[in-house]
Amino acid sequence: MSAPGSLRIVGLGPGSEAWITPEALGLIANATDLVGYGPYLERLPLKPGQRRHQSGNGAELERARHALRLAEEGRHVALVSGGDPGIFAMAAAVFEAIDEGEPGWRDIDVAVSPGISAMQAAAARIGAPLGHDFCAISLSDNLKPWPFVEKRLAAAASADFVIALYNPASAARPHRIHDAFALLRDLKPASTPVVFARAVGREDEHITIETLDAADPGLADMSTLIIVGSSETRIVPRGAAAPFVYTSRGAKVP
Amino acid sequence: MSAPGSLRIVGLGPGSEAWITPEALGLIANATDLVGYGPYLERLPLKPGQRRHQSGNGAELERARHALRLAEEGRHVALVSGGDPGIFAMAAAVFEAIDEGEPGWRDIDVAVSPGISAMQAAAARIGAPLGHDFCAISLSDNLKPWPFVEKRLAAAASADFVIALYNPASAARPHRIHDAFALLRDLKPASTPVVFARAVGREDEHITIETLDAADPGLADMSTLIIVGSSETRIVPRGAAAPFVYTSRGAKVP
Repeated sequence: MSAPGSLRIVGLGPGSEAWITPEALGLIANATDLVGYGPYLERLPLKPGQRRHQSGNGAELERARHALRLAEEGRHVALVSGGDPGIFAMAAAVFEAIDEGEPGWRDIDVAVSPGISAMQAAAARIGAPLGHDFCAISLSDNLKPWPFVEKRLAAAASADFVIALYNPASAARPHRIHDAFALLRDLKPASTPVVFARAVGREDEHITIETLDAADPGLADMSTLIIVGSSETRIVPRGAAAPFVYTSRGAKVP
Repeated sequence: MSAPGSLRIVGLGPGSEAWITPEALGLIANATDLVGYGPYLERLPLKPGQRRHQSGNGAELERARHALRLAEEGRHVALVSGGDPGIFAMAAAVFEAIDEGEPGWRDIDVAVSPGISAMQAAAARIGAPLGHDFCAISLSDNLKPWPFVEKRLAAAASADFVIALYNPASAARPHRIHDAFALLRDLKPASTPVVFARAVGREDEHITIETLDAADPGLADMSTLIIVGSSETRIVPRGAAAPFVYTSRGAKVP
């Protein structure tokens, strides 16, 4: 029997190295094996003796099982994720694999290291749109039926939450973001601020601030995080500079 | 007229230095003036020539205006906040002060640096309870009427979101967390996992995992972040070790 291994599920944040925590850097440096989606691993320097296990996007559960098997063999594994691994990322897949997998996997030394999630980076760039009560919803219907997404969008709109939309569109699902905007336009004021934040922290970062009636949902792709305001979200114009967007800390009963 | 100043709104994360981003450390090191709640500032080394402006908790808007006035005078100000300044913290107060303040404040060089928020640290410690759609709700009714909070709790429960509760209780508001639990117990299954995460990342960190029917809301204080699961949130027992808690990435329509 080999010495006990370990698995650390590590978040790199949304793109900029200035947002990677010291804890994440330390866990990556001390790992014997790095597991993750190719583009994330390519951002990391490889130390002597470290092994890199690249995988494609998707297939999260299989990637999680691969990382668990390596830890079971005594390796010290860093499973690398973008953003915060705990928010629409790899951590849930690992615990799901443990829950449904071999009983021995429950004894593996597993821990999560949090990171800056896309909604936080997007919010920071424009002001403070998440300054009060908000919901985070994934528009992917790969693993849940679309009516369930619609129910959550409607509940979030009816209770006037700010809404952060993850996974708004992909090549396989180009239309769901249009369905979501149609639903939100029926339930929220036309003047509601909407932010499309693409590739925040990367070289091709691009941010668009619109109102709900004027916004083009076709702007969204896999790298876009969308924030839809509440009735307390305001746009502060600033002449030639980009406006600020923030959500007031208070709220009136409508 | 003095040279242009700047204001950076900086998040320190929930307590552990291992969670402070390099960007936050750099902004703090380069500031001429540090503004913030006393205990946050005391965590930071003071560099020669740096001025420290401590304030009490509460009075966020006055603290924001003080930071803006210093920037207006040409100082380079780091306004320091715990967690992520964009999530139930100082950033919204600053943009509210700009929105309602002197027109010239809109020209001040202001930017936000994101940080790890309390719900992310709490989630990382126990597994991945925020792994799927969730809401973040502040139970403080200092700035919004309580019926508004109830409406949001009910909407979040009815659409089966995971719910992160910020500001669950304070000396002035010891009872709202009991009201919130009474409401959630009417709307959610008794077996729903509930996590009380107190002072995560600090020496006195304490985490309790319960079910909704057995949980004691009296455990919550100002330093506690509560996570209430969805119907897809599961507890994974691990013998003598603390259980994992995670939310499945998929969902069935109920």
